Amino acid sequence: MINFIEDPHKRFNPLTGEWVLVSPHRMKRPWQGKVEAPAGPARPAYDPTCYLCPGNKRADGEVNPAYTSCYAFTNDFAALLPDTPEGSYNEADLLVAKSQKGTSRVICFSPRHDLTLPEMEVEEIRSVVTLWIEEFSNLNARKDIRYIQIFENKGEIMGCSNPHPHGQIWALNDLPVEIEKETARQEAYWAKKGRSLLSDYLDLELKEHKRIVCANDHFVALVPFWAVWPYETMVISRRHVRTLLEFNGAEQEALADILKRLTTRYDNLFQTSFPYSAGMHQAPVNDGPHEGWHWHMHFYPPLLRSATVKKFMVGYEMLAGPQRDVTPEWAAERLQALSEVHYKQLTN
Amino acid sequence: MINFIEDPHKRFNPLTGEWVLVSPHRMKRPWQGKVEAPAGPARPAYDPTCYLCPGNKRADGEVNPAYTSCYAFTNDFAALLPDTPEGSYNEADLLVAKSQKGTSRVICFSPRHDLTLPEMEVEEIRSVVTLWIEEFSNLNARKDIRYIQIFENKGEIMGCSNPHPHGQIWALNDLPVEIEKETARQEAYWAKKGRSLLSDYLDLELKEHKRIVCANDHFVALVPFWAVWPYETMVISRRHVRTLLEFNGAEQEALADILKRLTTRYDNLFQTSFPYSAGMHQAPVNDGPHEGWHWHMHFYPPLLRSATVKKFMVGYEMLAGPQRDVTPEWAAERLQALSEVHYKQLTN
Ligand SMILES: O=P(O)(O)O[C@H]1O[C@H](CO)[C@@H](O)[C@H](O)[C@H]1O
Ligand SMILES: O=P(O)(O)O[C@H]1O[C@H](CO)[C@@H](O)[C@H](O)[C@H]1O
Repeated sequence: MINFIEDPHKRFNPLTGEWVLVSPHRMKRPWQGKVEAPAGPARPAYDPTCYLCPGNKRADGEVNPAYTSCYAFTNDFAALLPDTPEGSYNEADLLVAKSQKGTSRVICFSPRHDLTLPEMEVEEIRSVVTLWIEEFSNLNARKDIRYIQIFENKGEIMGCSNPHPHGQIWALNDLPVEIEKETARQEAYWAKKGRSLLSDYLDLELKEHKRIVCANDHFVALVPFWAVWPYETMVISRRHVRTLLEFNGAEQEALADILKRLTTRYDNLFQTSFPYSAGMHQAPVNDGPHEGWHWHMHFYPPLLRSATVKKFMVGYEMLAGPQRDVTPEWAAERLQALSEVHYKQLTN
Repeated sequence: MINFIEDPHKRFNPLTGEWVLVSPHRMKRPWQGKVEAPAGPARPAYDPTCYLCPGNKRADGEVNPAYTSCYAFTNDFAALLPDTPEGSYNEADLLVAKSQKGTSRVICFSPRHDLTLPEMEVEEIRSVVTLWIEEFSNLNARKDIRYIQIFENKGEIMGCSNPHPHGQIWALNDLPVEIEKETARQEAYWAKKGRSLLSDYLDLELKEHKRIVCANDHFVALVPFWAVWPYETMVISRRHVRTLLEFNGAEQEALADILKRLTTRYDNLFQTSFPYSAGMHQAPVNDGPHEGWHWHMHFYPPLLRSATVKKFMVGYEMLAGPQRDVTPEWAAERLQALSEVHYKQLTN
């Protein structure tokens, strides 16, 4: 047995096959290091200098339409391009490279420059879900695309280059590293048990009820047993679906609902617009059945102690392996205890 | 073939078996995101409030000796503890944990609060090398230790909690994730070729001479073909040794020399005290011969465009896989072109 509250231990991530070092007692150490700038002043609903606001001009000279809900376009500085020729390079199996092609899309969540997901209405988030499905479906139709990464960087400290509420989609002709890991592990589990790894995991979590943050009829948000970031969470669909194309209407609505509730809890934790990188993991496309794949979403938020002190994944973490200073159970308890009414609405 | 200068491609890291996405054209995108605070004012040679300065009191009440060279002690808030009892936990192979024991040491590089490695004399860095060897040797003597991670977090933006020049050593009874990967790959290579992977790689790099930054008789500093961070480098020993215990006197001196020269180039790049996490990778200890292991050191510096704009490893990187905006060859050229005289000495 392990005393999870006192003893340093490592925990296994069955989705990637990797481990995280948990040092439950480290939270006590004094912090004289970097303190992030507190959030700036409230933003205007429309910013004439923002290249994501409706009607404004973008870097490439194009003008955004006067959109009223959400809006998608191809990134003017895409990391992946549609016409890259096939190519590969190999010198003694030591210098090895392969060309990559694909596209990057930008998804504006709202015409309002001053909102973020938790401050939007559920019906507005529902429109984002619809747009994600539409975009995924379009990309899926391109036979050279094998993986579609939907994600959001929220907040300056997560490298977000514009505070206008938006996310991105990068799609490419290959499986990225993390997707290869999750594919291998989920498919091995499926081959052995005939059930999805995440269905069995979710059953265990619902039984123990120690790491659940919130839930509705179709989704559960929880702090995974193997969480790396202090307040990391996962949203798992109760039904085993491979991609969001399989969500029915009720599930699409429930996804909007759980996103609103989880991100509101996050904002309430430190009474700040809570930064994170979040994204969906789903089955590769145009690449066989991938029966073991179970749709889920990861939230990786960096804050540790307050709105201005984050966890640094540096030295030991980069060179040896991830390390966390509090237990996932401790974090889950804190997230559970929070209200689902946004703090800005309470203080108004 | 691939046009490395124009086309997005991925490159293979033979040490870990993982890939990095290279988007050579992305450097052109405008940056409206986070700008780091410029370096603060010069620090005093002695700071009465610093818990690492000679003669000062630490968090646990102990008083540092009036050390005059370098100095090591056990971290008052260690992530690993020597007396953690053995223990493991397994629920359906989905909730899996194992206790971890070990220790964390802090290594003060100099009594001077205001220095950093590039500003120290080679002979002073030579004393740090000697202390690393001593510490490694002591930890190696504990039969329950299997891996010893020597590293440094330099700079506030790398989570360094005190600017006094120092590094750390975390040692534990297990192989961390990154070490497992590098062990597997290096040993498979050794089994197949009877030579170390890094010896063969180094030969290739010396022949091509496109990514070499600087070198001396015993070490080469280069931007690896598969670099993830914009100005990432590796220091590789020309001789195939497993750990720094095998370095002879000339090699110990040459290590101090290459560290001084590489970190000076780094500081000169943006005329700032260049932040990074750096650390040595070496063979596990008390764990069999590990013949394929070849000592090396990684430098992971976050800066991208200037002293205040860093590369964010967020959204796509966290969820899918690492991505870089410039080619390793481009970065190597810039590092090659720099002086090995520290900019502060030139402007004085
Ligand atoms: O041990 P320190 O310097 O207090 O802390 C720093 O280094 C550690 C090891 O890389 C990290 O876990 C911490 O996040 C970082 O702030
Ligand atoms: O595409 P953006 O928003 O300009 O850039 C941001 O997200 C990308 C994808 O996660 C990262 O590669 C960049 O480092 C980050 O700054």
